[in-house]
Amino acid sequence: MGRWRVKMNLSTLETPALVLDQRKLDRNIERMRKRLAGLGVGARPHLKTAKSIDVARRLLASVDAACAVSTLKEAEQFAGAGLHDILYAVGLAPNKFDHVHRLRSRGLGLSVIVDNAQTATLLAAHARATGDRVPVLIEIDCDGQRCGAQPASAGLLEIADVLGDACDLRGVMTHAGASYGCFDDAAKVAMAEQERAAAVGSARALRAAGHAAPVVSVGSTPTACFASALEGVTEVRAGVYMFSDLVMAGLGVGSVDDIALSVLASVIGHQPDKGWIIVDAGWMAMSRDRGTARHPVDQGYGLVCDLAGTPIGDLIMVDANQEHGILALRAGSGAALPDLPIGTLLRILPNHACATAAQHAGYCVVDGGSELVAQWPRFTGW
Amino acid sequence: MGRWRVKMNLSTLETPALVLDQRKLDRNIERMRKRLAGLGVGARPHLKTAKSIDVARRLLASVDAACAVSTLKEAEQFAGAGLHDILYAVGLAPNKFDHVHRLRSRGLGLSVIVDNAQTATLLAAHARATGDRVPVLIEIDCDGQRCGAQPASAGLLEIADVLGDACDLRGVMTHAGASYGCFDDAAKVAMAEQERAAAVGSARALRAAGHAAPVVSVGSTPTACFASALEGVTEVRAGVYMFSDLVMAGLGVGSVDDIALSVLASVIGHQPDKGWIIVDAGWMAMSRDRGTARHPVDQGYGLVCDLAGTPIGDLIMVDANQEHGILALRAGSGAALPDLPIGTLLRILPNHACATAAQHAGYCVVDGGSELVAQWPRFTGW
Repeated sequence: MGRWRVKMNLSTLETPALVLDQRKLDRNIERMRKRLAGLGVGARPHLKTAKSIDVARRLLASVDAACAVSTLKEAEQFAGAGLHDILYAVGLAPNKFDHVHRLRSRGLGLSVIVDNAQTATLLAAHARATGDRVPVLIEIDCDGQRCGAQPASAGLLEIADVLGDACDLRGVMTHAGASYGCFDDAAKVAMAEQERAAAVGSARALRAAGHAAPVVSVGSTPTACFASALEGVTEVRAGVYMFSDLVMAGLGVGSVDDIALSVLASVIGHQPDKGWIIVDAGWMAMSRDRGTARHPVDQGYGLVCDLAGTPIGDLIMVDANQEHGILALRAGSGAALPDLPIGTLLRILPNHACATAAQHAGYCVVDGGSELVAQWPRFTGW
Repeated sequence: MGRWRVKMNLSTLETPALVLDQRKLDRNIERMRKRLAGLGVGARPHLKTAKSIDVARRLLASVDAACAVSTLKEAEQFAGAGLHDILYAVGLAPNKFDHVHRLRSRGLGLSVIVDNAQTATLLAAHARATGDRVPVLIEIDCDGQRCGAQPASAGLLEIADVLGDACDLRGVMTHAGASYGCFDDAAKVAMAEQERAAAVGSARALRAAGHAAPVVSVGSTPTACFASALEGVTEVRAGVYMFSDLVMAGLGVGSVDDIALSVLASVIGHQPDKGWIIVDAGWMAMSRDRGTARHPVDQGYGLVCDLAGTPIGDLIMVDANQEHGILALRAGSGAALPDLPIGTLLRILPNHACATAAQHAGYCVVDGGSELVAQWPRFTGW
């Protein structure tokens, strides 16, 4: 009997395409799992980077595992796959109350966050009307970057009072987005402690005022990777570590070799006078994210690798149009421009995995090499 | 008999959502139609901004109309709706030759572009092997911004020679991307002339060498809007004018009032000490495009309007996370921060319509007001 010998390979794909190396994914997942176990803290991985049920299956030990999402669409999709302990980790708009209630009415254990008394008042009224004591975490502002009630403040206690018995106040959550500006390892350690202290102190203030507040939820990938201790924290939310990206590598959170995500592109032209190589992956494939623009090493729109995933000298995507990427040596490089003929396939590492993945309908999965071992769909939207 | 009285309105939608005002869309389409008719030149509108069959129906008089696309996915989708004169206006990668041939074998009049002899050699060999004389335009570099053979150069003639009889050489095309840096109206007029001259001169050089080259295709929205004459040009490709955006308005190509696209968002929080209002539309809804960053007026991630679409003082989205937008007054503004309670619905005008639309699965269509008159799907991917 003959056997099928056709193997799908990255070299057989049309470009651009999103490539995910499951070997690096698994390594990144295992590293974080061990780290959090070592710190004696629970995990609530954020699924907003992956937005993929296949990735969630590799990440979570069972459907009983906790996770966080950034949209109700994610909550619906992951609930459809069996997950039932889901935190919607974006401050709730009133026009989503009914949607949250519908999902909870179907048996989904969906919890939400609130950071102000006005939303809390509206949510408590809605909860009283439906009789659904929705579980709530109060969001704490640990670093002045975005949302959140001030730690252990009168405002925090007011929110808890307003929620009253109408909702199930579970505790507090915070996210140290400022860790993305911490290039020094000591600064990341300090930011992790700042994040921890704001959350734990706020939970204590709630408990001192008579609220139960059993949950203390923190997390960003840099602080999760650099926290020296997480006493009083019950769970860590981090997401981008699974795929990693050039922003993480530039921050010293893992290395370029840890980046599991890349965009496959073809060389379609050259402008030799300018030292440019043109590829058919522009910002539509890479996203417009320029997260390394203010880093010590600016990676442009992405760092260029060969088909095996090895970076090519100082070659980066210096500019991007909708479907065109312009590759050139980074400013000041002494390297020679590589000879990459028309049709050469390249893999371009992204600045920001969340943004780049969002531009694609699915992952072309490899396992360390360039052979295609699976195709995993992903979802987008709200 | 009772009648249904429920009217869908923007105020009944969950946020974020992409809103398209068909009244402004129609006005923008009609203005460009009249302008090109006045210049006595044909139109080949670029559908890469809209990626919507419903928008194409409003734009094009019939399925016989010419159009341009930026992906083969667009070609397939629009061919499925009946369009059959489609230019794939991105330099062709060899791994797409088979796909182009498949589409052409189904009767689609798909033409392609080439800007170098190496691709031309590969394409001619493929065309000889299939017997399909694919129509080709040679791309000209009119402004040193991206791709293209040098105008009227030996390289241009070499491409034509290499294509030989294997392909159907139809002429030349160019795109003055540099027009996006022309803030002065005289500079836009001059750039339009530079674009025209490069294309017409290249077509003349081809004809002088014995090639037919009947097609001379130019276009960008700024040059299409400011060209004083287009002698020798047969068709204009422009796309973003249909929706317009803050980049166009900042360039003086139309006004803010012409922008047909916006993102509906809800206020979800405040940080009064910082003068911040937080909404549930971040870069996932707006895109990471910062196209006005180097404009005289930096609009951040977008200009904030009320539900009726009227800009609110100097309120812009100064920063964006994945699902959070931070609104604040632009630097130096003397305006007072408006009082926008939790749940307030806002419409945020985008920097770049192509990038923002690409973040959404469809358009919530209004007709001048806030009543929802239709929902139009759009497509993404390759």
